[in-house]
Amino acid sequence: MVETQPGALLDIALVHYPVFNRRREVIGSAVTNLDIHDIARTARTYGVRRYYLVTPYDDQQTLVAELLAHWLEGRGGQLNPARKEALELVRVVPDLAALYDRVRTARQQRPLVLATSARKQPLTKDFGVVRQGLAGGQPALILLGTAWGLAPEALAEVDAFLPPIELGGDYNHLPVRAAAAIILDRLLAR
Amino acid sequence: MVETQPGALLDIALVHYPVFNRRREVIGSAVTNLDIHDIARTARTYGVRRYYLVTPYDDQQTLVAELLAHWLEGRGGQLNPARKEALELVRVVPDLAALYDRVRTARQQRPLVLATSARKQPLTKDFGVVRQGLAGGQPALILLGTAWGLAPEALAEVDAFLPPIELGGDYNHLPVRAAAAIILDRLLAR
Repeated sequence: MVETQPGALLDIALVHYPVFNRRREVIGSAVTNLDIHDIARTARTYGVRRYYLVTPYDDQQTLVAELLAHWLEGRGGQLNPARKEALELVRVVPDLAALYDRVRTARQQRPLVLATSARKQPLTKDFGVVRQGLAGGQPALILLGTAWGLAPEALAEVDAFLPPIELGGDYNHLPVRAAAAIILDRLLAR
Repeated sequence: MVETQPGALLDIALVHYPVFNRRREVIGSAVTNLDIHDIARTARTYGVRRYYLVTPYDDQQTLVAELLAHWLEGRGGQLNPARKEALELVRVVPDLAALYDRVRTARQQRPLVLATSARKQPLTKDFGVVRQGLAGGQPALILLGTAWGLAPEALAEVDAFLPPIELGGDYNHLPVRAAAAIILDRLLAR
């Protein structure tokens, strides 16, 4: 029997709609080049199966497709094969319904759906519990928010939140790229 | 007695010279805007005392000074006070000698100097050991490399390496921004 690494049971998604802006209005945010590269490299390091970008906008989807083509088929991947290897994890989906559909089909079951937040939330699952779940064969999908975080409309299918990454301090403004790295390390590092 | 948080005993430095390029030649790399912002925000989250940028180049130093002025004295900090708070940790030094001098003066003792590497190194100190040291009052300074990592010329005053962040896998191309986040979390999270 082939042993499945816990990372292979994990999918992550960076959600660009629906999220809050700084005035807590629901918006769609722009996809940024660096979020794609940084989080893909981290996901590849930890053996995550897929890194989904959720954006409903055609122009954003086209932009990502062009960027991926440069690295996966074009000159980028020839010059930097490690970057190509990371970006092979990336997929674009138009909305959360399509995300859930893709992951459920790949897993042949519904994954545990976890959201992230910089604030304390009522329903959280500790990192240790999720870590044990992955180690025990339970697939999971983590939603990361952009801009000022996931809007309530994004939470309909969410089972629980991961705890916020903070030190009891007063500062909760981690870049999503750093939060993704810390979360994957807490869930998957040996 | 005021209890010192472990993060307050930690300084980090992002080294732009001397580092390797992809052909393992010693070069000076360019300071990037995102390394400044992301690592400052992570450092602020974990209560790190200072985040030093080491670059010998006048034009790079000027660029950083302009960027910091925008956020610390100009419009940026008014619009986004959290960003200002993070960037207040940043200092620029021309070389490692100046870095050690500054930290030694602030600490009134020589800190434990730790380097980071994506490869296994002969002399490493485990995260748990460094974590205990910080909790016990031992100041430490962590050198993070840019480009393809710290060149041997950067290691003269280094006491030990932190272990590489990898999962026994074959992929060791984490962004330095992600590595910094994971290292601080391993050393300072409660």
